[in-house]
Amino acid sequence: MKNSVRAFAPATVANVCCGFDVLGFAVDHPGDEVLLTLNDSREVSIAQIIGDGGRLPHEAGKNTAGVAVHSYLQAIGERVGVEIQLFKNLPLGSGMGSSAASGVAALVAINHLMGNRLSRKELVPFAMEAERIACGSAHADNVAPSLMGGFVLIRDYQPLDVVKIDVKLELYCTLVHPHIEVKTSDSRRVLRPTVSLRDAVTQSGNIAGLMLGLTQSDYALIARSLKDVIAEPVRSAFIPGFEAVRSAAVRAGGLGCGISGSGPTLFALSKDADMAQRVAQAMQHEFANHQLKTDVVISKLNPEGAKII
Amino acid sequence: MKNSVRAFAPATVANVCCGFDVLGFAVDHPGDEVLLTLNDSREVSIAQIIGDGGRLPHEAGKNTAGVAVHSYLQAIGERVGVEIQLFKNLPLGSGMGSSAASGVAALVAINHLMGNRLSRKELVPFAMEAERIACGSAHADNVAPSLMGGFVLIRDYQPLDVVKIDVKLELYCTLVHPHIEVKTSDSRRVLRPTVSLRDAVTQSGNIAGLMLGLTQSDYALIARSLKDVIAEPVRSAFIPGFEAVRSAAVRAGGLGCGISGSGPTLFALSKDADMAQRVAQAMQHEFANHQLKTDVVISKLNPEGAKII
Repeated sequence: MKNSVRAFAPATVANVCCGFDVLGFAVDHPGDEVLLTLNDSREVSIAQIIGDGGRLPHEAGKNTAGVAVHSYLQAIGERVGVEIQLFKNLPLGSGMGSSAASGVAALVAINHLMGNRLSRKELVPFAMEAERIACGSAHADNVAPSLMGGFVLIRDYQPLDVVKIDVKLELYCTLVHPHIEVKTSDSRRVLRPTVSLRDAVTQSGNIAGLMLGLTQSDYALIARSLKDVIAEPVRSAFIPGFEAVRSAAVRAGGLGCGISGSGPTLFALSKDADMAQRVAQAMQHEFANHQLKTDVVISKLNPEGAKII
Repeated sequence: MKNSVRAFAPATVANVCCGFDVLGFAVDHPGDEVLLTLNDSREVSIAQIIGDGGRLPHEAGKNTAGVAVHSYLQAIGERVGVEIQLFKNLPLGSGMGSSAASGVAALVAINHLMGNRLSRKELVPFAMEAERIACGSAHADNVAPSLMGGFVLIRDYQPLDVVKIDVKLELYCTLVHPHIEVKTSDSRRVLRPTVSLRDAVTQSGNIAGLMLGLTQSDYALIARSLKDVIAEPVRSAFIPGFEAVRSAAVRAGGLGCGISGSGPTLFALSKDADMAQRVAQAMQHEFANHQLKTDVVISKLNPEGAKII
């Protein structure tokens, strides 16, 4: 039996405009990596974390990778010792699913070492437990796509109903991370507890349109549907130049553009790599007009999710 | 050139649980028929209406069939005389899209006589104009499926975006019409102007799930998604025994059950004709327990919409 393995889990975009709190997708890169090694300690421990600037807790019970492994081992009834080395490539608090990727990479690694006893979908609840530690709520819209790849719908939580979306067309994602900090707690706080019936219907029409655009391979319908009347109107206030950047992305040919998770990263979707590149330049230029430096990544969508490397 | 034609337009179920105000589908039968005859009068007139119990206006400008034909002829710039005979098979105010079917049948007939100058989708706005006369608002969730067949999403109205859903699996509809009257104005009045953010998210998850269930041919997902947390909780109060009837439909094997349009007709969806029959009996029995007589129809879904007969 192998006692050490390395795994990669990709960044993810949650919400996806009209999919507030129900939708996410995975990109091919960047992502986090873990190296898991079994030992005789019967404990889960974090040996080192590289790339977090010293900001993440090394206590296994407070780290998404540690919590994910611990809850998995408890569920399958194995009491083995596990040492975790975590290689962070995703910026913390950026809206790219950084905490989710660490937990997912660790889960996929431990599941591999235990003979893949659970399916990717069955791993979702353990990754959600880890999210609860990191974010205060057990959301699945980052962990499910990071585990399963592609676009994933979280139809419901009680009981959990996670549906992989059968997308046949090519999509490229542009991720633009402006150098500002938006606290998740602030992003949550500004959401209004009620929405108008009209806005709820508009959101329904758009999420339905997006599902049909994705499954019926209709780029134009995807573009028409990528609108958010619920979270974006209030959350965009945290991102200087948001509307100008969004418009620039669409003018440059992007199918749509919105806030990735609760921000501050913005995502845009494009039909091909060239367009995604033009969209990236337009967004970066517009952020620069608002005195914001940015990091930019262009990636295909990731069809399979986290993997052993 | 032919100067007379007969057309049929099917009944429709709007809303479809989680698809409040954005979704509808057409059944194979029952439906309304029109006989259109061109003449030299240069006016649109209603010659006779059969089956309405004398309740519908014979003035062409107040009848959905008349309004639909008139607005179509104006748009294509033809000033021909048209005599309409209308054969109503759908009960008025039942929630089965009765006014829509009359308008749609008339439109398909006049478009046929004019050489099919417009596509089915292009006819939607004229049928909506007719709905405005009948219902006070230009909704498309009955007229679009009656014109185009199958399941149709109304993603948006400004501008109008009507999307036919590519459904490959078999579906049967049970329509149960209890002998009570629910005024559309009352059904509209009880809707709350705001919904909780939580309910809006739940509705998003369910409409997205229904779209995926339909396009990815997943009966179980369709069943899990056929829930309405927005209109049904308030509108079901108009229908004695609603919850008992809905539960009976699901216990009998139905994929889901809800209010057709704004009621009082209830619809249920089933995988096959036998199941739709058992569902019908269960629903009828439960309504009888609540001292309500019912009419029942079982039909396949109509894939093509209105037709020349």
